[in-house]
Amino acid sequence: MRILGVDPGLAITGYGIVDYRGNSFSPVIYGCIRSLTGDPLYQRLKSIYDQLTNLLTDYRPDCLAIEELFFNRNVRTAIAVGEARGVLLLAAAQAGIEVFEYTPLQVKQAVAGFGRAEKQQVQYMVKVIMNLPEVPRPDDVADALAISICHANNHSGLGAFL
Amino acid sequence: MRILGVDPGLAITGYGIVDYRGNSFSPVIYGCIRSLTGDPLYQRLKSIYDQLTNLLTDYRPDCLAIEELFFNRNVRTAIAVGEARGVLLLAAAQAGIEVFEYTPLQVKQAVAGFGRAEKQQVQYMVKVIMNLPEVPRPDDVADALAISICHANNHSGLGAFL
Repeated sequence: MRILGVDPGLAITGYGIVDYRGNSFSPVIYGCIRSLTGDPLYQRLKSIYDQLTNLLTDYRPDCLAIEELFFNRNVRTAIAVGEARGVLLLAAAQAGIEVFEYTPLQVKQAVAGFGRAEKQQVQYMVKVIMNLPEVPRPDDVADALAISICHANNHSGLGAFL
Repeated sequence: MRILGVDPGLAITGYGIVDYRGNSFSPVIYGCIRSLTGDPLYQRLKSIYDQLTNLLTDYRPDCLAIEELFFNRNVRTAIAVGEARGVLLLAAAQAGIEVFEYTPLQVKQAVAGFGRAEKQQVQYMVKVIMNLPEVPRPDDVADALAISICHANNHSGLGAFL
């Protein structure tokens, strides 16, 4: 199963494409989709959409996993994240792949075995589980990989694999 | 000048396409883009995007006018509206048309001559300015037409035309 995890944002969207087979992960590609702060909003959204569409075309993941939004952020941030999220979900729908949403609690539980784990702990576990030389930066990339792990955990039929 | 005004929402997006020439308005088509509550989010966003893209293809407006979002709504609503807004702005970017944003104050000022006008007053003025038999329903449609009027007012070079 090839999973595309995304952590959406207007300026930076983290992504991580990982293959999950036989209870182990192989990262395929991970990084950031960025849009330029000075550009008009609709151009930024088109840029985000185009970059994700390119990833979907080039790497053909089986599904997209995304975090349900926190509701404790401020409303302005929520709208901007919502706009980015909208075009990402659209790209997935157009590629014909399924979308799965997970709460932050589910992600932490899957990656660190504890729903209230600290951010650093989650990032460290991403590095360990993915067998990476270091914690991916910026945080958005590690978060995207964490979401991929969470999806694998929820769809492997094995329950927790840690 | 052919203007597409939109009032975005996940369940209902109002739209109004109007021609503005010689200081008068001719509504071309107006109505609602709807998405089904029971469908997965990404399918709903694709449906909204597809419906707007069809309007852009069929009626070829010169620009899209949209309201800047209120920031006094709750965060959950803000995210949903942001998601819908994201795919609408993307469709405009892909169609190569410019996008203009207006505050609620600007819209009320343009349509009713008073930034603190009541909703009913704005709707009544939309009916009068557009020479419609009745106030368009639901509210989202009247709001979309009000945004079109606001854009015409700001780009006519005539200042207030009421």
